[in-house]
Amino acid sequence: MSEELGITAKKENMSEWYQQLVLRAGFADYSPVKGSIIYRPWSYAIWEKMMESFNAAIKAHGVENAYFPLLIPESFLKKEAEHFAGFTPEVAWVTMAGENKLDERLAIRPTSETIMYYMFAKWIQSYRDLPFKVNQWCNIMRWETKMTKPFLRGREFLWQEGHTVHTTKTEAETEAEWAIEAYKKLVEGLLAVPVVTGKKTESDKFAGAVYTITVESLMPDGRALQIGTSHMLGQNFSKPFEVKFLGKDEKNHYAWQTSWGLSTRILGGLIMVHGDDKGAVLPPKVAPIQLVIVPILFKETEKQVIAECERVKTKLEKKGIRVKLDDRPDYSAGWKFNHWELKGVPLRVELGPKDLEKKSIVLVRRDTGVKTNVKQVELVKTVLAELDKMQTDMFEKAKGWLDKHTVKTEKAEELEAAIISGKWAILPHCANIGCEEKMTEKFAGGPSLVIDKKITGKICIGCGKPAKYWIYWAKSY
Amino acid sequence: MSEELGITAKKENMSEWYQQLVLRAGFADYSPVKGSIIYRPWSYAIWEKMMESFNAAIKAHGVENAYFPLLIPESFLKKEAEHFAGFTPEVAWVTMAGENKLDERLAIRPTSETIMYYMFAKWIQSYRDLPFKVNQWCNIMRWETKMTKPFLRGREFLWQEGHTVHTTKTEAETEAEWAIEAYKKLVEGLLAVPVVTGKKTESDKFAGAVYTITVESLMPDGRALQIGTSHMLGQNFSKPFEVKFLGKDEKNHYAWQTSWGLSTRILGGLIMVHGDDKGAVLPPKVAPIQLVIVPILFKETEKQVIAECERVKTKLEKKGIRVKLDDRPDYSAGWKFNHWELKGVPLRVELGPKDLEKKSIVLVRRDTGVKTNVKQVELVKTVLAELDKMQTDMFEKAKGWLDKHTVKTEKAEELEAAIISGKWAILPHCANIGCEEKMTEKFAGGPSLVIDKKITGKICIGCGKPAKYWIYWAKSY
Repeated sequence: MSEELGITAKKENMSEWYQQLVLRAGFADYSPVKGSIIYRPWSYAIWEKMMESFNAAIKAHGVENAYFPLLIPESFLKKEAEHFAGFTPEVAWVTMAGENKLDERLAIRPTSETIMYYMFAKWIQSYRDLPFKVNQWCNIMRWETKMTKPFLRGREFLWQEGHTVHTTKTEAETEAEWAIEAYKKLVEGLLAVPVVTGKKTESDKFAGAVYTITVESLMPDGRALQIGTSHMLGQNFSKPFEVKFLGKDEKNHYAWQTSWGLSTRILGGLIMVHGDDKGAVLPPKVAPIQLVIVPILFKETEKQVIAECERVKTKLEKKGIRVKLDDRPDYSAGWKFNHWELKGVPLRVELGPKDLEKKSIVLVRRDTGVKTNVKQVELVKTVLAELDKMQTDMFEKAKGWLDKHTVKTEKAEELEAAIISGKWAILPHCANIGCEEKMTEKFAGGPSLVIDKKITGKICIGCGKPAKYWIYWAKSY
Repeated sequence: MSEELGITAKKENMSEWYQQLVLRAGFADYSPVKGSIIYRPWSYAIWEKMMESFNAAIKAHGVENAYFPLLIPESFLKKEAEHFAGFTPEVAWVTMAGENKLDERLAIRPTSETIMYYMFAKWIQSYRDLPFKVNQWCNIMRWETKMTKPFLRGREFLWQEGHTVHTTKTEAETEAEWAIEAYKKLVEGLLAVPVVTGKKTESDKFAGAVYTITVESLMPDGRALQIGTSHMLGQNFSKPFEVKFLGKDEKNHYAWQTSWGLSTRILGGLIMVHGDDKGAVLPPKVAPIQLVIVPILFKETEKQVIAECERVKTKLEKKGIRVKLDDRPDYSAGWKFNHWELKGVPLRVELGPKDLEKKSIVLVRRDTGVKTNVKQVELVKTVLAELDKMQTDMFEKAKGWLDKHTVKTEKAEELEAAIISGKWAILPHCANIGCEEKMTEKFAGGPSLVIDKKITGKICIGCGKPAKYWIYWAKSY
């Protein structure tokens, strides 16, 4: 199978390394439909873990899952002008069904605000129906014309989109913040990827939002990856879609809305942040397999060794650990080591005749490569502790790297140096679109801009006028 | 909200009753896109329970989840001629992206055999790669031109599709049977809907299959509903798609394949089989809420009653029971009783000041309406037992009804009587397509035909020639 080749590219050669790793470790494959990938089981299982965890978080917060139609009439997209302008250039249109031309073109959803809010207007009548919170897990299509890259940029991807409706502006703003905090917990806690959060500047907000809050992380090649976004929609959609409620004051009011989404794009970030020259390194909490057992087989002791491996497997599985026993006879132990290292399984147990005698096993950590001899009686305890520790260590390591690659600067030449050396710059800015655009021209590609804090008494690094904010500035994915 | 109206239609008037119930209990709503419905949280949560249970079953069986592209090039669909002929009349075609016309039309998947098997050919090389088993949960589009009905017939629905590849014909046949058994367990065990399984006759098999096995159930209006199907594909797809493997004999062989799917259609079946004149009745295992607590409130005792309700809730939740405390002040207890009966919540707890005094509660079962006084100390035990019992009782009741509505007959006039009175007939048949078609003309709508057992010594009810099988015969959905 295609993943049975190792990778030859080094991580310092990020683009080639990433592509080899994604394909050969079996995360994804290219499909015959340009821009659409296959999410193979190795990546889909990680997505399942994320869904499970995020579902628990949103359900505890009163959000219910639902499912809305894939196809959206063109007239719906047109109802909010900015939204239409932002999305139509990349919409895939259904124009025929069977042999018949449709009366109105139908868009494959690039996002679901319009179709959902048409329904919300029907369902929501009174303040008693609010807050109203729904979420859907689904496929999304945006016809990218730029070069595509598995997970990071494609025409079809999977995501969740949460949509909430509130009686007051403040409540909606609090909700938009809540989603960002939930994303931060998910991404840092489960994926061990450290993030920065903040508002986007005007130029980069969601088409139709009052403002957008973002969760981003810096990738090893010095580009920022937007992981999830939460939009304060204000009444921008409730007005054209007539999402109104009868207040306690017996009057009709337009509702306040938010929407927030996180996509499979993060799977690319996860791979880039943690991987090394041998392949992927998966955080224990989301690894489809947390521990692989590789028996060291010799003819005379084969049966006993396999039997012992199975006992170990059962013992660990009873504690909820996801274990794979790789007892395939056609492959050598060395080949198996490489195979599971490539795929990024957190822990490996090696077990041969000598270990049988000593009543111990060899435990190897994927992230550090450290080998330890562990007594059988201490196995379960040690494995549980190592899984925990590896999760923490991976986050700490990534956080340390991120901190080292973030520089605060007020000088244009330092900004340039930071961008060239692949760092995230934090700089004072006036938040004026014209100034932002001029600065952007200096750097190839669209920048990632995240607003950190308000400031006074500083000068904008771009135009010399008074700065409004500290802004994170980096090239973006 | 729209579900806050009760239903007025009686179940004996099935079509009107079903439509009112689906809409007013909040299972689904019509969308502005004809033929696509909104899966509202109340139905989607049931689907989530089904996904959870079926995922456990398929994973234990070695099937891995993955995700394949939504869009399929027209040329792919054409590779298997029967398959193309069967599906293209109801395909939605993407012909434009942004402002550009596409070179080749892309079909929104009506099923994924073709796009998957193109990839399988790439991934599978040796017998060591087999058996190969993947499944995907996704949306599917089939442009129905007949009248649509929520869940039962629509243009977009949700399903799972499992696809497996094997070295031998026997192994593939066993796998196709396995899927049917898994569906039967799921539908009977979780949804309490009794089913019949068997092969479809030639006229009704999947376009491209060697044969199709089906899981069906009889609805209260006397029509059979096809719930899930499993297809033995033989080498019909492996040949055009070149899904080959190097055998132990060092020679290349075409692989043997199966595919099997179960869709959200079953949600319609679930509602029809169990519902009554008051609304839905949900089996405890899949009910999004298993027990609702309705406090009986009077001004003087309000606080104590609510506090006690919360204690009861916490106690039951600790045992894993899904509980809702409906303490909304704006609605009366009677209104709440009706509301949750309409939605089909299995158990209701009523708790007022008198119950506080007696240290008891009133427990009401949705299916029987029976009210019991339960001592607080026995509450948890009683609730757990009632949930179990209700699940069993619901299945037994539905099974009893099904048995009463199934008649074995060898006489044409009895068949006609059975169909008219809404029963499933089991009859001897020659399995000749011509004969089947002639018989079909006698009854309105396409029939559901499920092959039960081989027979000898009987005469075909249609043509008088020797019969080959006992066949289940009913009108179909």
